[in-house]
Amino acid sequence: MFYHDRQLQYKVRVDKPDPVFARMLQQAIGGIEGEIRVCLQYLFQAWGNRGPEKYRNMLLETGTEEIGHIEMLATAVALNLEGAPTSMQEEFANDKVVGAIMGGMDPRHILSSGMAALAVDANGVPFNGSWVVGSGNIVADMYSNVAAEATGRTLATRLWHMTDDAGMKDFLSFLIARDTMHQNQWMAVIEENGGLRSMPVPNSFPQSEEVQGFNYAFVSTYIGSDTTEGGRWTQGPSLDGKGEFHVEKAAPLGGIPKLAPPVPGAFAQKEQMTPVDSLIGTVTSKIEGALSGSGGTSTTDS
Amino acid sequence: MFYHDRQLQYKVRVDKPDPVFARMLQQAIGGIEGEIRVCLQYLFQAWGNRGPEKYRNMLLETGTEEIGHIEMLATAVALNLEGAPTSMQEEFANDKVVGAIMGGMDPRHILSSGMAALAVDANGVPFNGSWVVGSGNIVADMYSNVAAEATGRTLATRLWHMTDDAGMKDFLSFLIARDTMHQNQWMAVIEENGGLRSMPVPNSFPQSEEVQGFNYAFVSTYIGSDTTEGGRWTQGPSLDGKGEFHVEKAAPLGGIPKLAPPVPGAFAQKEQMTPVDSLIGTVTSKIEGALSGSGGTSTTDS
Amino acid sequence: MFYHDRQLQYKVRVDKPDPVFARMLQQAIGGIEGEIRVCLQYLFQAWGNRGPEKYRNMLLETGTEEIGHIEMLATAVALNLEGAPTSMQEEFANDKVVGAIMGGMDPRHILSSGMAALAVDANGVPFNGSWVVGSGNIVADMYSNVAAEATGRTLATRLWHMTDDAGMKDFLSFLIARDTMHQNQWMAVIEENGGLRSMPVPNSFPQSEEVQGFNYAFVSTYIGSDTTEGGRWTQGPSLDGKGEFHVEKAAPLGGIPKLAPPVPGAFAQKEQMTPVDSLIGTVTSKIEGALSGSGGTSTTDS
Amino acid sequence: MFYHDRQLQYKVRVDKPDPVFARMLQQAIGGIEGEIRVCLQYLFQAWGNRGPEKYRNMLLETGTEEIGHIEMLATAVALNLEGAPTSMQEEFANDKVVGAIMGGMDPRHILSSGMAALAVDANGVPFNGSWVVGSGNIVADMYSNVAAEATGRTLATRLWHMTDDAGMKDFLSFLIARDTMHQNQWMAVIEENGGLRSMPVPNSFPQSEEVQGFNYAFVSTYIGSDTTEGGRWTQGPSLDGKGEFHVEKAAPLGGIPKLAPPVPGAFAQKEQMTPVDSLIGTVTSKIEGALSGSGGTSTTDS
Amino acid sequence: MFYHDRQLQYKVRVDKPDPVFARMLQQAIGGIEGEIRVCLQYLFQAWGNRGPEKYRNMLLETGTEEIGHIEMLATAVALNLEGAPTSMQEEFANDKVVGAIMGGMDPRHILSSGMAALAVDANGVPFNGSWVVGSGNIVADMYSNVAAEATGRTLATRLWHMTDDAGMKDFLSFLIARDTMHQNQWMAVIEENGGLRSMPVPNSFPQSEEVQGFNYAFVSTYIGSDTTEGGRWTQGPSLDGKGEFHVEKAAPLGGIPKLAPPVPGAFAQKEQMTPVDSLIGTVTSKIEGALSGSGGTSTTDS
Amino acid sequence: MFYHDRQLQYKVRVDKPDPVFARMLQQAIGGIEGEIRVCLQYLFQAWGNRGPEKYRNMLLETGTEEIGHIEMLATAVALNLEGAPTSMQEEFANDKVVGAIMGGMDPRHILSSGMAALAVDANGVPFNGSWVVGSGNIVADMYSNVAAEATGRTLATRLWHMTDDAGMKDFLSFLIARDTMHQNQWMAVIEENGGLRSMPVPNSFPQSEEVQGFNYAFVSTYIGSDTTEGGRWTQGPSLDGKGEFHVEKAAPLGGIPKLAPPVPGAFAQKEQMTPVDSLIGTVTSKIEGALSGSGGTSTTDS
Repeated sequence: MFYHDRQLQYKVRVDKPDPVFARMLQQAIGGIEGEIRVCLQYLFQAWGNRGPEKYRNMLLETGTEEIGHIEMLATAVALNLEGAPTSMQEEFANDKVVGAIMGGMDPRHILSSGMAALAVDANGVPFNGSWVVGSGNIVADMYSNVAAEATGRTLATRLWHMTDDAGMKDFLSFLIARDTMHQNQWMAVIEENGGLRSMPVPNSFPQSEEVQGFNYAFVSTYIGSDTTEGGRWTQGPSLDGKGEFHVEKAAPLGGIPKLAPPVPGAFAQKEQMTPVDSLIGTVTSKIEGALSGSGGTSTTDS
Repeated sequence: MFYHDRQLQYKVRVDKPDPVFARMLQQAIGGIEGEIRVCLQYLFQAWGNRGPEKYRNMLLETGTEEIGHIEMLATAVALNLEGAPTSMQEEFANDKVVGAIMGGMDPRHILSSGMAALAVDANGVPFNGSWVVGSGNIVADMYSNVAAEATGRTLATRLWHMTDDAGMKDFLSFLIARDTMHQNQWMAVIEENGGLRSMPVPNSFPQSEEVQGFNYAFVSTYIGSDTTEGGRWTQGPSLDGKGEFHVEKAAPLGGIPKLAPPVPGAFAQKEQMTPVDSLIGTVTSKIEGALSGSGGTSTTDS
Repeated sequence: MFYHDRQLQYKVRVDKPDPVFARMLQQAIGGIEGEIRVCLQYLFQAWGNRGPEKYRNMLLETGTEEIGHIEMLATAVALNLEGAPTSMQEEFANDKVVGAIMGGMDPRHILSSGMAALAVDANGVPFNGSWVVGSGNIVADMYSNVAAEATGRTLATRLWHMTDDAGMKDFLSFLIARDTMHQNQWMAVIEENGGLRSMPVPNSFPQSEEVQGFNYAFVSTYIGSDTTEGGRWTQGPSLDGKGEFHVEKAAPLGGIPKLAPPVPGAFAQKEQMTPVDSLIGTVTSKIEGALSGSGGTSTTDS
Repeated sequence: MFYHDRQLQYKVRVDKPDPVFARMLQQAIGGIEGEIRVCLQYLFQAWGNRGPEKYRNMLLETGTEEIGHIEMLATAVALNLEGAPTSMQEEFANDKVVGAIMGGMDPRHILSSGMAALAVDANGVPFNGSWVVGSGNIVADMYSNVAAEATGRTLATRLWHMTDDAGMKDFLSFLIARDTMHQNQWMAVIEENGGLRSMPVPNSFPQSEEVQGFNYAFVSTYIGSDTTEGGRWTQGPSLDGKGEFHVEKAAPLGGIPKLAPPVPGAFAQKEQMTPVDSLIGTVTSKIEGALSGSGGTSTTDS
Repeated sequence: MFYHDRQLQYKVRVDKPDPVFARMLQQAIGGIEGEIRVCLQYLFQAWGNRGPEKYRNMLLETGTEEIGHIEMLATAVALNLEGAPTSMQEEFANDKVVGAIMGGMDPRHILSSGMAALAVDANGVPFNGSWVVGSGNIVADMYSNVAAEATGRTLATRLWHMTDDAGMKDFLSFLIARDTMHQNQWMAVIEENGGLRSMPVPNSFPQSEEVQGFNYAFVSTYIGSDTTEGGRWTQGPSLDGKGEFHVEKAAPLGGIPKLAPPVPGAFAQKEQMTPVDSLIGTVTSKIEGALSGSGGTSTTDS
Repeated sequence: MFYHDRQLQYKVRVDKPDPVFARMLQQAIGGIEGEIRVCLQYLFQAWGNRGPEKYRNMLLETGTEEIGHIEMLATAVALNLEGAPTSMQEEFANDKVVGAIMGGMDPRHILSSGMAALAVDANGVPFNGSWVVGSGNIVADMYSNVAAEATGRTLATRLWHMTDDAGMKDFLSFLIARDTMHQNQWMAVIEENGGLRSMPVPNSFPQSEEVQGFNYAFVSTYIGSDTTEGGRWTQGPSLDGKGEFHVEKAAPLGGIPKLAPPVPGAFAQKEQMTPVDSLIGTVTSKIEGALSGSGGTSTTDS
């Protein structure tokens, strides 16, 4: 369960309120690389954690810290909105600046929230719960977390660069520092679980069941006659230490797929169907086959 | 630009069509860990690639391969739907099995597509373009790709385990093998760009601008008196080799935020507002301050 | 900022794990009437609160409590998923029960989360940030909160009724009790702000600016000749004590709207356009009018 | 069933077309506090109404009126778009005003609709059917309706304040008047159903089943040593007249949750799993327990 | 503006309530091929109609009729839900049928709406305003309408085939009849506007501006050596009567795209960037070029 | 399966980069009328095609071509973003132009992608898989394709008109030409399948099952006393040649719907319910009726 303090984790000061920058900050609140996402992602990973308990404990810690990051960003948005225009009266005729500000703002900061943050990104697109990744595989989840923090820190540096407000720059420097830690933190868990040798994820699937010959092959779909220049991924031992990279030209092994004609109940055009009487017989036997578990339909050429 | 063959990259055989498994396969087509996502993600990263050209070339190769993976999965869905029921007539009274099959299917496989794959996940939730991550930072993007392949391979192994259809198991073993390669491939790019020392991402931001003391600190929000057991992330050198891990108890440094009262144009309740006359004066001066760039409003206690 | 305990706010016990009930519980996590929504709604209202500070403080309290409610529900989902099937092998032929369970589960509980909760509703539709309402008007927000708790408590009672698991019933009885309090709590704020006389919300807009005659009229669009039986809303003083209810038959006061023909740059069909030469003249003068602020176009008959 | 007139319910006049204001009006069409939402919400509540028939009749009336409100707003958008620029030719070099207008418009008003309204909000985010709330509980639904009208009227007053176009101000004054009525109307239904004593919603759930002691307690998660100042919600009789408010410090009653280790079929990392042989035994017995209904697993400490 | 009758347009009778069929019917309410979509699509096209007024009048008629179709479907859902189970008590042990019904229902029909229709599709995915297409081009809109009615009628026939409830079959036969009319109706408008010669849409764009040689060419991306068998689209006069079909093998005319290196403010990895000093110079000159309108950057090989 | 070339299908040249136009181009990438949609739509139709194989082959061709169209547009976005501002430093005070550009850009082109295209529309709304229509009925699908190309070509002409960049105009002229072909191509398939006589779609449903008298009737919901002027759709033979158009005044045939009172498990308010004891009896018998298949409930007056 959770507790709170009324104070913020770090100082949020705005020297010169800027409602267009308020909109930009929304990306760090409600965007796919924003703080609601990492907050819920770490908490859901903690709540569903199975295996060594110390990872649950750690994820709870950082998930809880992130609630406070949303709080600081929401405060930064509210402060940047102070003094923002609420009226377009005569603006285009008389005051280009007010017009440009309002055109560049998130209009819902006026219309919907009355000068407060929203759970949306910089375009007003709402936060989406599909972004909260927790797979139940600790290494897959850590890579998802590293990816979130890498794009998140990139976002924070872009916001830092975008503004010349000293208060905002200081605040963003704090978030950037935390993202440095969190990138390292998730990689530390991967190191504890074998580092690069934790791959391929999941490592509990027996690799002998893979179709051999394709698990360390770079498949080239390039149609040109010049050869690909290649890189670390075209030769040498694989990163997981379990194979050897090589190059394969893309080639079809699967034949041309053949689907059965439409069933009557799907109401295709008549022109798509074979004569109905024979078709009904075919379909009936298929259904019977499917339900009895016998028979089976190999519908693809090999 | 792109070309195609009418044949599939690998054989897709369904021995015993199962419309409930068709629904399950949709997660690998239209889910966040599915193939439309990685296909578009690699292609958009290629098309927006800036920096060494060989990465664009490589991303194009694998993005193109992934189109063929969507194709094979869509074919697998269509084949699993052959023989599926299209009518519930008398089912609950007479035939529990047909009822259970239809209850477990994606109803839109009958109603909307007429026994074909859809661009949705296993719950019918449509593919969402927000999942296509391309940040313009090569290492951030590679971690996003590793994360996608790690959750994608985990999904494929779960599908492999779920079915006992030999054709489907063989097909999924091919996808699993390709995901092994792709995880290794993206890590190979990271190795070329410094491996763990590429962190913190982005490495082009000067770390001297970070708020020092917090970039390698594990912040503990735990309120209990027993200490966290810790792990690789609480002591020792950081993974990027640029700092030393340590633990900090969470403590507020930011004071209590103070927001200005509502502006009249935002139409809060009267009870939220200070007397209107004085308020209008305050707001006016704020707007002027904001627009002139002078003044500035420090609205947070330090 | 925020802290946590590793213990739950209330006991979450599952006597007989039921993966179909796990899916049902998702509605209380990621649905529009669920706990992620109220958690973020109260916190965003707190963070954007302008006016008496005590409301910020109170909203922070309850928003923080709600994080712990998501935690308990996520735990309940994970516990209900223990023992759930991960394979359909031979199920339809041999074991109808396993088939029915898997058909009724959220397939992503197996495929995507590996037996853990997701940030989605009972149909797998992701949580959506648009549901987080904070208008900046304290009474509008309190009614939004009452509405969320009224639908939320209704949901919790339906879940309570649906299960006969004693552990789950006990846990849900706790959530139901908290919803009782929260409904009362938000109404208490409305009472402090004038109760029914806080209407019409917002009360800071001068009602003299409303089109008189329509603000307390029940407009009847019913085309039948029998009269509406009416109710409290067709006669007597209005609930806000500021008007008298009466009934008005719907009648058009606005004339037929007339839109200008398409502009050439919008590429309508030729058949929609008046001769191009004259049209360009018209449009040009309109643009000039719009930009100069003079003129004006009354395009609707009165 | 439904009928129409070609005339509008009220006059929609635009004196000075403003394409940026057209974008703002979209919030009142396709936003969560907009007219499509209330229109569908009242109609779906009518169509699903169970209980006294007069509420169905009343909801049909107002739902039908709201279709006409969408119509007026769509007309207002179209009129405000007349004269809007369709080309950026040389604009940034020669004409800052045209550039600022186009930057502040919804680009889809040009690109997608050719100068007409869309079913989206002020940021172009599409209307979402999840906002249409109808719970089947008449009081829960009325609070949802009051909340929608309270935020809707707040939006309309902000739009009124934003423009100085006399035609638009008059039109918005009509919508504001109707929202006044509708707030009162929904509260009138609540009065008919017991007013405050209709709480806690739903009132058909026996309160004796609630966990006693928590249904009228304000739970404080605040970690500071100073006490909360409190308010109407911390003491005195509850608003529903069925309890007495009191304050409880947040404290954990639920123990630390313990989840079972991952099942093999979920393909966690090996490091997360206990030895596989013993695990399979455990899981098998769990499945059997779940399906037989006997046994049961208490997985949480009390 | 709009009026209503309390009676339905056509009889909605359910002989044997079936909650799984209730879920299926939701596709016709809130799906992309459903009635909310066509209702709003025709109304928005009417409200934004520019050009001959008779089309506005006609679209208003049919849009208004469609509201009544949503009403009938919502009623059909509510009737099919009567008698649906609300509890899973002991179901898996004792009563497979109840379990299968609940597994196949939309759980939100119990949990969220209390046995009433929702504004969602058969998978519970909410209606989405993006589906409401109105382009401002009358022929483009009519084709969108034909497409909606063609998929809508196909859906209705599949629903008709799925059920053996005589009441539901009769009701669906009415909807199917109306869809027949509406398909014909929209084609009639196209005939009035030139029929096939209205193509290419929009016909107000001068075809002389098209890149000649590609506007009637079937581009073949097929890599096989056997030739495409072709069809009506590979030879003969084009359908619009303005060109002659022919086949072109796909071939690249566009060269390899070259993007500039990353700008410093975008914080790519250092390894992606050329030396910073020279880069800043380049970027500065580019910005100046962009703003002055002089210069220009040809970044693609021809 | 698929292959690629590193060259583009057609030349993409930007003479004067314009970041606001980059945003506009996003509509053609990720909008409902954009290229991701048609690409996936044609490919999914190919992959699910049942009936004559030549249509699968043709759809594969054009779907593959469309991948290259997304590629060109993504390249055009990246080129237009070169030189775009990344900082608002002092902009409002010193440089209105930079401010206006940044206000009119998609902020995520800076913040999220670092000057590259995204899988979103011109408002930043993500691409949505629900737009990918493939019904399994060849004529329904062809009309969906014509509609997509008609709105798509209209979009392209609007973009062409919007810019005066010669490179962009040339590139868009290529896309416009291709859309001309594709409109003709899909109509050619319809001609092969009977042209107008393929209606009503689906033609495999027996029209004798339609409710006669309504399948060629224009239903008028207009309440005015003046008669509709009519058009091709009110008289003469229907377009499909199978009926005769006529006009019917809207009139209710369906009676007033009567729903059963709420069931106890749905927890409506007590005031909505009839006495509980009798109700439980009623409900029980209904459930039994539903499950046994006997009885049946006619709940609608005729």
